[in-house]
Amino acid sequence: MTDLPDLSHIQKALHRIQPHTHRTPVLRSKQFNERVGADVYFKCENFQKIGAFKFRGASNTVFSLTDEQSMKGVATHSSGNHAQAVALAARMRGIPAYIVMPSNAPKVKKEAVAGYGGIIHYCEPTLQAREDVLNDVVDETGAYFIPSYDDKRIVAGQGTATLELLEDYPDLDYVLAPVGGGGLLSGTSIAAKGIRSTIKVIGAEPETVNDAYQSFKSGKLQPATNNMTIADGLRTSLSDLTFSIIYKNADDIITVSESSIIKAMRFIWERMKIIIEPSSAVPVAVLMDNKLTVTGKKAGIIISGGNVDLDKLPWL
Amino acid sequence: MTDLPDLSHIQKALHRIQPHTHRTPVLRSKQFNERVGADVYFKCENFQKIGAFKFRGASNTVFSLTDEQSMKGVATHSSGNHAQAVALAARMRGIPAYIVMPSNAPKVKKEAVAGYGGIIHYCEPTLQAREDVLNDVVDETGAYFIPSYDDKRIVAGQGTATLELLEDYPDLDYVLAPVGGGGLLSGTSIAAKGIRSTIKVIGAEPETVNDAYQSFKSGKLQPATNNMTIADGLRTSLSDLTFSIIYKNADDIITVSESSIIKAMRFIWERMKIIIEPSSAVPVAVLMDNKLTVTGKKAGIIISGGNVDLDKLPWL
Repeated sequence: MTDLPDLSHIQKALHRIQPHTHRTPVLRSKQFNERVGADVYFKCENFQKIGAFKFRGASNTVFSLTDEQSMKGVATHSSGNHAQAVALAARMRGIPAYIVMPSNAPKVKKEAVAGYGGIIHYCEPTLQAREDVLNDVVDETGAYFIPSYDDKRIVAGQGTATLELLEDYPDLDYVLAPVGGGGLLSGTSIAAKGIRSTIKVIGAEPETVNDAYQSFKSGKLQPATNNMTIADGLRTSLSDLTFSIIYKNADDIITVSESSIIKAMRFIWERMKIIIEPSSAVPVAVLMDNKLTVTGKKAGIIISGGNVDLDKLPWL
Repeated sequence: MTDLPDLSHIQKALHRIQPHTHRTPVLRSKQFNERVGADVYFKCENFQKIGAFKFRGASNTVFSLTDEQSMKGVATHSSGNHAQAVALAARMRGIPAYIVMPSNAPKVKKEAVAGYGGIIHYCEPTLQAREDVLNDVVDETGAYFIPSYDDKRIVAGQGTATLELLEDYPDLDYVLAPVGGGGLLSGTSIAAKGIRSTIKVIGAEPETVNDAYQSFKSGKLQPATNNMTIADGLRTSLSDLTFSIIYKNADDIITVSESSIIKAMRFIWERMKIIIEPSSAVPVAVLMDNKLTVTGKKAGIIISGGNVDLDKLPWL
């Protein structure tokens, strides 16, 4: 892998997506700071368009395409935030988006994709079926495939959240981000290390789906053997690309239990009055569990999103 | 009632409480604006200290006291946000706070008051018992009673939210606030009309507890005959003071159904990713139900608070 993305790609991505994205606020909480003994800066991608950081990578990729590449639209398979992100980015560019979703996806997700003008193709709820149907759709329509994380343009887009965070607060000692497929952590690590190599970059992962942890510690990409976690955005495994970037740039991967994730999520809802999804609570839990010593330091956390099914809260 | 508070009282209150309160952000939502066809500005008192606007009135009153008045501490009866507000304001001033709470108050509320250093006295869950126990506590301790809304200093404090909102966005056509005991709406109406008499001030009330509506329409103070509403901050009736102010300054009181309140609350949680309590959703519901024509106009809404029992969400 000779040409991994670098800071300049993220800077270009930010320039490209700025007209289309929110510059999300950075919030702080006295109660949280007292609790963890550090100064913590929450970069609130739950307030991003479509309610998650995923819009950054998707819009960077969609707006990177030449007119010829984009002419017949774009396509992806996703049951989550990436589906909405691609649908909205495509609508903004004025091209069709073909979204392959499992037939059992929650109604609220289907409606959201349709609400952004996405053309939904349903498939059986297996990865194989998703890929097969996607290939059919791409063959039929000529649409351009937008992956959800295994792509340098996606990685560069996701890194823009950290670029903004460090523009606002340049003297952070740590940046923490959740890790699933690794797109966000890859972009985060490139941005942070590119700006200042002494910033520690920490990936936070559910201990039940700890492929990034296993891969990072062993130095060899290892797929997840389980996808059971409440953090529904983190059920995927790293790719060669994201593993290479993370292995090179991140300082550590730290895992937390399901109960810690739920406790952290509830703490943020109750004390900060903002809605964060379980995946966002994973790095919060790392600090609340004292799994990383940040006493007296400044730590940024990328709050990845706020898309939660309000009928199924994890503490009920 | 010859000497109702005016804008100068609110300006003095803001000056007094500024060192102790958050200047809360004003949020906007493209989706909400599209839905109601207006430009809406949410003044987010859910991000205020103790999670509600009540801290403004309580801190204004506590910090208005002379050293002699405050020497023996302060006291109040409340099962809600006012209890926490008085406890925290007293702690900031370095005096004791005696809080009379019904024995059946939710555990989370008791813990919050205790967490701010409040000294809790329990009573039977009736208004009579609350007042009796409060009188006993005041007799025993010599503490100064801080009412929850029937007080000019409280009214002036609550009005500071609107003063900040209109400093940030001076050209609003409407300001909406929920109405229960009327402290918030009183302060809101004095601030808005004092700044520009053409700003329309609208109170929003649950239709099941519509004493403010009945009083406003009939021109005579009428107590609530029912206190059953999901909007737990709005179960109280206006006082002579708040009725006089509201009758003089407000342009209308509009009521909404329980189901509209729940729908509005959920809409804000899902789309804006912020936690608002049911009382805050009442003015939101007024706009979502098109009960007020604001097409093409600019409307501010005072989001009164975000203290919600996450184990008992109204849509579950």
